[in-house]
Amino acid sequence: MTEISHDLLQPEMPPTRWGDPAHAGPLPDGVRDLVGLVFPLSDTPAAADVAVPAPQLAPDLVAGLRAVVGEEHVVLDDAVRRQRTRGKSTPDLLRQRAGDLGDAPDVVVRPDDHDDVQAVLDFAQQHRVVVVPFGGGTAVTGGLAPDREGFAGVVSLDLGRMRSLVALDPVSSTATLGPGLRGPEAEALLAEHGLMLGHFPQSFEFATIGGFAATRSSGQSSAGYGRFDAMVVGLRAATPKGEVRLGGTSPSNASGPDLRELFLGSEGAFGVITEVTVRVRPLPEVKEYEGWQWPSFAAGADAMRALAQGDLMPTVLRLSDENETAINLARPDAIGGEGSAGGGGCLMIVGYEGTTAAVAAKKAAVTAALTDLGGTPLGAEPGQAWVAGRFNAPYLRDSLLDVGVLVETLETVTFWSNRERLYAAVKAALEGALGDGTMVLCHISHVYATGCSLYFTVAAAGGEQPLERWLKAKAAANDAIVASGASITHHHAVGTDHRGWLTPEIGEAGVAVLRAVKRELDPAGILNPGVLIP
Amino acid sequence: MTEISHDLLQPEMPPTRWGDPAHAGPLPDGVRDLVGLVFPLSDTPAAADVAVPAPQLAPDLVAGLRAVVGEEHVVLDDAVRRQRTRGKSTPDLLRQRAGDLGDAPDVVVRPDDHDDVQAVLDFAQQHRVVVVPFGGGTAVTGGLAPDREGFAGVVSLDLGRMRSLVALDPVSSTATLGPGLRGPEAEALLAEHGLMLGHFPQSFEFATIGGFAATRSSGQSSAGYGRFDAMVVGLRAATPKGEVRLGGTSPSNASGPDLRELFLGSEGAFGVITEVTVRVRPLPEVKEYEGWQWPSFAAGADAMRALAQGDLMPTVLRLSDENETAINLARPDAIGGEGSAGGGGCLMIVGYEGTTAAVAAKKAAVTAALTDLGGTPLGAEPGQAWVAGRFNAPYLRDSLLDVGVLVETLETVTFWSNRERLYAAVKAALEGALGDGTMVLCHISHVYATGCSLYFTVAAAGGEQPLERWLKAKAAANDAIVASGASITHHHAVGTDHRGWLTPEIGEAGVAVLRAVKRELDPAGILNPGVLIP
Repeated sequence: MTEISHDLLQPEMPPTRWGDPAHAGPLPDGVRDLVGLVFPLSDTPAAADVAVPAPQLAPDLVAGLRAVVGEEHVVLDDAVRRQRTRGKSTPDLLRQRAGDLGDAPDVVVRPDDHDDVQAVLDFAQQHRVVVVPFGGGTAVTGGLAPDREGFAGVVSLDLGRMRSLVALDPVSSTATLGPGLRGPEAEALLAEHGLMLGHFPQSFEFATIGGFAATRSSGQSSAGYGRFDAMVVGLRAATPKGEVRLGGTSPSNASGPDLRELFLGSEGAFGVITEVTVRVRPLPEVKEYEGWQWPSFAAGADAMRALAQGDLMPTVLRLSDENETAINLARPDAIGGEGSAGGGGCLMIVGYEGTTAAVAAKKAAVTAALTDLGGTPLGAEPGQAWVAGRFNAPYLRDSLLDVGVLVETLETVTFWSNRERLYAAVKAALEGALGDGTMVLCHISHVYATGCSLYFTVAAAGGEQPLERWLKAKAAANDAIVASGASITHHHAVGTDHRGWLTPEIGEAGVAVLRAVKRELDPAGILNPGVLIP
Repeated sequence: MTEISHDLLQPEMPPTRWGDPAHAGPLPDGVRDLVGLVFPLSDTPAAADVAVPAPQLAPDLVAGLRAVVGEEHVVLDDAVRRQRTRGKSTPDLLRQRAGDLGDAPDVVVRPDDHDDVQAVLDFAQQHRVVVVPFGGGTAVTGGLAPDREGFAGVVSLDLGRMRSLVALDPVSSTATLGPGLRGPEAEALLAEHGLMLGHFPQSFEFATIGGFAATRSSGQSSAGYGRFDAMVVGLRAATPKGEVRLGGTSPSNASGPDLRELFLGSEGAFGVITEVTVRVRPLPEVKEYEGWQWPSFAAGADAMRALAQGDLMPTVLRLSDENETAINLARPDAIGGEGSAGGGGCLMIVGYEGTTAAVAAKKAAVTAALTDLGGTPLGAEPGQAWVAGRFNAPYLRDSLLDVGVLVETLETVTFWSNRERLYAAVKAALEGALGDGTMVLCHISHVYATGCSLYFTVAAAGGEQPLERWLKAKAAANDAIVASGASITHHHAVGTDHRGWLTPEIGEAGVAVLRAVKRELDPAGILNPGVLIP
């Protein structure tokens, strides 16, 4: 099967920014004017090549790892370790901008295949070395910052060499993918066969197949193609207790509990996912994206609910609240502009992908339903603008941080009947914690028959202590989410940042089950300790 | 909320037959002629009111249970215990026809609510009493026949009093149902609100909501409404370690592993499911079922695959192989007759339910696709015949057993690319084990983008030792399923009958995880011991 070249260490993101800095460009004038109006700029330090702590792993253990995966695949180089320090949350970026690389791994180990991973785990278990699986480095909830107390050191297990299309079953429409494949790489390998996966989260350019599975990622086409976990047919993992292979017999069955669902969302705490088998689809003949205007967020949300409950889902379905719609209009590189929802209200993006016939039929039915429900069609331009900018928001965040503006996102999910309460509670919590001039934007981008996600973007003056300011606001938002009876995360995962809010959601018995599974599969507790499990 | 009356003990099925014997009627002449041609009749004993072993539970423990749930809800009556002895597999029926009621519970306990269940579990754990949750008694894989060695006795925990609509959220389209509600009762409660669940397994008349969840049931409308586990939004369970509540925050999320999926399919081994929250739907305005003829099983299966992979699923989609199509034509009460696939080939039933507009659109698209694929439309009559007989097959089995014909069903699921291999292997295994004159029929009734179920019906002469004959044939079929790389069960669950074939499917690590969860939640091992876990 085709294999993606892996000459380069993956990924090449600087620790203080998102993606390739050359791609980001300066802050657009429109946004500078806007944020200038909202809050004063402050002096958050710009990106700096700060020192990485020296590796703490004993030389004999380094030598032992070299014996396992080969000399050249055990890397102690500062630049490589710096790139694998934490993820890309705003707190991660702020800590690194402030010169704190305290969570740097001691060594980066690059296994070539499942057996390499298993051998590393066996070695690590024997010598009490922490292992943190590393894919794209796009974690935003502290999933790459394990507890290291009491361990001999921390290995960042970089899966960047495991990037092949392992198997393809075109009759069954399944493909088995290496965990280190980034989104575009996986799509490129499948496209050679006329197929696609269809998972496009905002982190698509960098995040990996293994990471999508380990965090229960959800992409921008989830309305049509489903959450990543729903695309997964089977998986293979290495654990300190040995190999796990699940889902290899069938799409679904009644052979007891579905153990795939224990590894999906396990965030490296139960094992290292070494292969993922997913449902694939033919490449779409047609892609059409368009805008719709709604008089209010509530009216647009009710329309989304009607589509979902009527089993009439387009491929992409997103709705910005009034604030996000207004901000987008001020961004020359984003949705909005001529012909868009210039009169205010809320912008919905509706996308259709598939065969010409299927898109025509679906579009006709959805258009009729949305028209009935009071929506105003805005044509293709807002849709095209959204497509052009769909992966750009994290780059803009760096430019805003450069000028002292604190920007972060957070997300949650609840049932439809609880949507308004949750929306109001989170907004109030963020505004209360961050004070006057705070901007809170929101969109719905993942829709189910029974509920929807809420994705918030927050911008506020960074102030003297931007990290502390944000952590306080984030805690207030988390408290509001729990008090509203919603989930602490729809698709960003638990990591270390949400761990303190998980118990109310799954209960003491749920936590006890997670601990029991962890004890069984990882008795020495070397796998990403401190992540996920309260 | 409305509550179904629970004056009667549930259900009132005799231990040796399916449902109400009055409903079954005599063996239709057509079938008698047919089976008469195929194999000779033998003298399997007819139903008999055989003796139930005396209760073994010590009087102080009976008294203790009475203190927990009330005097009148602890039943030692022979007739009541006889009805809760094992399930409704052909081996279950044969054992009971042969006078073996050795698996009878010592006592039937009828809790009224979650707290009652919790109190019973606490008592049972303390006194090492086995607890077997009992819903409709329709188990067909030995899930009601626990190991009792080393325990003080066996309680059949009859959930027949927990039959209310606990909560309804029409905005979110969810309903919370008591575990003891039978299929028609749940639908009746929802219909009062214009809603439905849409889960119609063959056991619909008797099986219960808790049982559907505990066994990952799949119904005849799974193409349109999904498997039962996919309908479940949340659940509540009592375990010896306390209450479990899962899924209460949201439709789906990234808050770690999905622990709902551990309780779905747990078959009473981890806890007793006391509430199930499901997605509900509006009652359909229109229901249309029709027949299609295909030149071969393979051609029909390819058409099903095309629909599933094209995301173009009707509500009901079933395909009989050549043998099953021919047999159905010989049954005056079942599918076939004038205008049906009289020319041979394979009969497909396609059903559409929903709003008038949605049914019209879906039917047009599916009809175009099936016509393109080479199908011949047979009109509404075969569809109506299927609807009329859809829950009748188990009654016919009793009539056949009465005249010495061994009849049983078994089912499996695999990926599309493995379907033909699996079909041939199971058929050969059954024919090889049962010898000349054996009839093996098959249909596909659950379809996924990546694969499908295969449901086999086997009929053979009972011979001198019908039970032993069948157990040998079933083992041969199970071996063939495992050797073919398929799942040991699509929707009948593991029970005790499939336990010996589970390890190849989920691996030693998977079994170790199940054991770890069991130890955590049920450290005394009182919950349905011997079921599910190898």
